[in-house]
Amino acid sequence: MVRRPLFEFWYEFASTYSYLAAMRIEQAAEEAGVELVWRPFLLGPIFKSQGWDTSPFNLYPAKGRYMWRDMEREAVRFGLPLYKPNPFPQNTLLAARIALVGLDSGWTPVFTKAAYMAEFGEGRDLSDVQVLSGILSGLGLDPESIMAEAQSETKKSCLRRLNEEAQSRGIFGAPTFIAEDGEMFWGNDRLEQALEWAARQARRSDLPV
Amino acid sequence: MVRRPLFEFWYEFASTYSYLAAMRIEQAAEEAGVELVWRPFLLGPIFKSQGWDTSPFNLYPAKGRYMWRDMEREAVRFGLPLYKPNPFPQNTLLAARIALVGLDSGWTPVFTKAAYMAEFGEGRDLSDVQVLSGILSGLGLDPESIMAEAQSETKKSCLRRLNEEAQSRGIFGAPTFIAEDGEMFWGNDRLEQALEWAARQARRSDLPV
Repeated sequence: MVRRPLFEFWYEFASTYSYLAAMRIEQAAEEAGVELVWRPFLLGPIFKSQGWDTSPFNLYPAKGRYMWRDMEREAVRFGLPLYKPNPFPQNTLLAARIALVGLDSGWTPVFTKAAYMAEFGEGRDLSDVQVLSGILSGLGLDPESIMAEAQSETKKSCLRRLNEEAQSRGIFGAPTFIAEDGEMFWGNDRLEQALEWAARQARRSDLPV
Repeated sequence: MVRRPLFEFWYEFASTYSYLAAMRIEQAAEEAGVELVWRPFLLGPIFKSQGWDTSPFNLYPAKGRYMWRDMEREAVRFGLPLYKPNPFPQNTLLAARIALVGLDSGWTPVFTKAAYMAEFGEGRDLSDVQVLSGILSGLGLDPESIMAEAQSETKKSCLRRLNEEAQSRGIFGAPTFIAEDGEMFWGNDRLEQALEWAARQARRSDLPV
């Protein structure tokens, strides 16, 4: 029996194109026969190391205006709602920590999609503890214990390590997809190519189980 | 009789993804039934107004490394050679002015493709007058008279006006495609969507002749 190749999905909750990717990646990965690895991380520290104190879409207004128009078109194309968060980008530190809590018990994907939908589909404030608690309750999870774990030193340092890993692996934006052989693809536009790459790799080699 | 809708192709000779677009845009535009308008311009002044003194791919090394890897994959996908120019980006002022000279007599497309091929396919220096003259000769054109016209005040101010237009229309990168209704698309990845948009517009309305 051959196991499925791993396929890393690095995403930032504040990232518009990560939203588009998150809402469709599970089906696409299933069809490609790869095993998704969810990697919530923060772009803020990476931007800061480049000298940026906010999103490049805010720093470069022409690029920002274009991005929102492009997102309108892309949201239509993927059949998704689109709401521009205020403020943009949202503070997603707590959301990312919560997503990490879910990795062991497997609810990270449903939480991720629900959080993106609250933020970009309904315009709710993703930095608000009440909003995040509501999302968790809506999924039948226990907000109180999850919040406590999300704010634990273990999870805080876990997110810090993930961010360091992102930076050391050359990630500079989101979404970023990484195949098991390390091949990196950036942007929702590259999801199909990234999955093709991963699936081709899988056919070529017997992956160690 | 209904005329074909105009479809503007804004490109920078130093731009890697403009190369990919230039080599395939004529056939794609033909299939979509749109009339291509070639718009050579310079990204340098636009980058400068954003506080950048070189390509963002140089300013942000992680992004630059990724771009070259992505270009390798994309070149394979489109069946094109890829050579990394040295220096990158090339000084493309003269090449852009020459391209403007060809607009009236219609050789801008063949010159553009030959120049991109020299630069990214063969690694030749596009700022070199000899290289540019050789390209023109190879196309059966007269380098001497074209060079003189390219360096005329008329063509210089023509390029300046084009650059001002690019900036005022919100162009921030290349390639950029603009449909006749003003809808803007950025990046080689968006060529198909841009052409679809333009063709849909054409079907919807009788364009004024």
